[in-house]
Amino acid sequence: MSFKTVSSKVAATIDQELMGPVGFTLQQLMELAGLSVAQAVLHQFPVQPSKNQVLVISGPGNNGGDGLVCARHLKLFGYEPVVYYPKRSGREEFYGQLVKQLEFFNVPVLGQGPDEGKWVEYLEHEKTVCVVDSMFGFSFHPPLREPFNDILSRLKKLENKVPIVAVDVPSGWDVDNGPVDEKSIQPNTLVSLTVPKPCAKFLKPEANHYVGGRFVPKHFAQKYGFEPFEYQGGSQVLKL
Amino acid sequence: MSFKTVSSKVAATIDQELMGPVGFTLQQLMELAGLSVAQAVLHQFPVQPSKNQVLVISGPGNNGGDGLVCARHLKLFGYEPVVYYPKRSGREEFYGQLVKQLEFFNVPVLGQGPDEGKWVEYLEHEKTVCVVDSMFGFSFHPPLREPFNDILSRLKKLENKVPIVAVDVPSGWDVDNGPVDEKSIQPNTLVSLTVPKPCAKFLKPEANHYVGGRFVPKHFAQKYGFEPFEYQGGSQVLKL
Repeated sequence: MSFKTVSSKVAATIDQELMGPVGFTLQQLMELAGLSVAQAVLHQFPVQPSKNQVLVISGPGNNGGDGLVCARHLKLFGYEPVVYYPKRSGREEFYGQLVKQLEFFNVPVLGQGPDEGKWVEYLEHEKTVCVVDSMFGFSFHPPLREPFNDILSRLKKLENKVPIVAVDVPSGWDVDNGPVDEKSIQPNTLVSLTVPKPCAKFLKPEANHYVGGRFVPKHFAQKYGFEPFEYQGGSQVLKL
Repeated sequence: MSFKTVSSKVAATIDQELMGPVGFTLQQLMELAGLSVAQAVLHQFPVQPSKNQVLVISGPGNNGGDGLVCARHLKLFGYEPVVYYPKRSGREEFYGQLVKQLEFFNVPVLGQGPDEGKWVEYLEHEKTVCVVDSMFGFSFHPPLREPFNDILSRLKKLENKVPIVAVDVPSGWDVDNGPVDEKSIQPNTLVSLTVPKPCAKFLKPEANHYVGGRFVPKHFAQKYGFEPFEYQGGSQVLKL
């Protein structure tokens, strides 16, 4: 299916505008974005009592925050999410609150202290239905640093066994030019937020592509050269 | 259908706990609550091109804020919402941002200056499919002051023609004891948030009752004497 995309530069402008003149707060946008990723997981990998674990790997920025919100909604949807959050944002008080919420929901948040390696057990666990890659988004610039290099090579090895659901941009990919080399992960599913970035054109043909982050009016979309997506009913996500 | 309720006092405790030890922010909870009300409207009064106007009447507090968020989602769902917001909260900067968002979405926000009386035209307009009552919630205490007394008597006169969708508590009702007298409005639809309040037992038998605000885990619900509601899929609202 053909779709419009916006470059990493335009995506950054959209974000600034949404949180500037449009008046959205990060907390609102992240709540809706995370909810839409959770709905995409639900659509693509419906809850099965025997296989309901989802490993969410969050990076230090806003893409990581979307994953933290997603994990909470997954729990409410009946999954057993586990979060691996090895580099916590020190800058934003709000991220601390997202973690606090997860702890209240009894969602394990790994990556601090002695449980550092435990995430690999979840990755390889037979009950794990998919892994949500919310490490890096449209503002990512190489190089990849540890532990993310190591994480991505582990995901790569298992990607045919444990499907990857990437949030907005597959981590490690060039936002505008797609996979960097043969070591780049190949997601089973991509959830583009607001509007796809150019790298979405480099998904495998059999990959699933959703758009989420249903929060821009028509005139705003058109200003940036795309049309609003035709979400159905009250859904926060649309399969393209 | 039978359902558990919590008193106004317990509802206040739940709210304090959600925004205290649980770590939610008002912005997150209001976004999800408003989205759930919009989904209830969509379920009860599906969009029709010929009749797609919704009048949202917001009070000065958090119930009013839920209405402001609801209006924005209604616009994204294909309605033409109009907001009447006569007493704006002076206390919370965030409410100003919710209004700013609505203006960006080209949703008229009435109630300041010369357009004061215009909301009545929308109430009586043939394209208006329902009115969302987000004036007062579970922390309301009588007496009703103007302009809300006048607004409610106008809604009452038309309630058989323009169905009322009440957010959490029908405005003017006693949260624990229901309608106050024969002048109290009778909503067509109630959207209880998190868990119904005792006044929900006083709905007309033919009224529609939804629960929204899908944001509490099982152990939290049980602590307050109710079971989590069985929401379907990724929906933020459930018809009881």
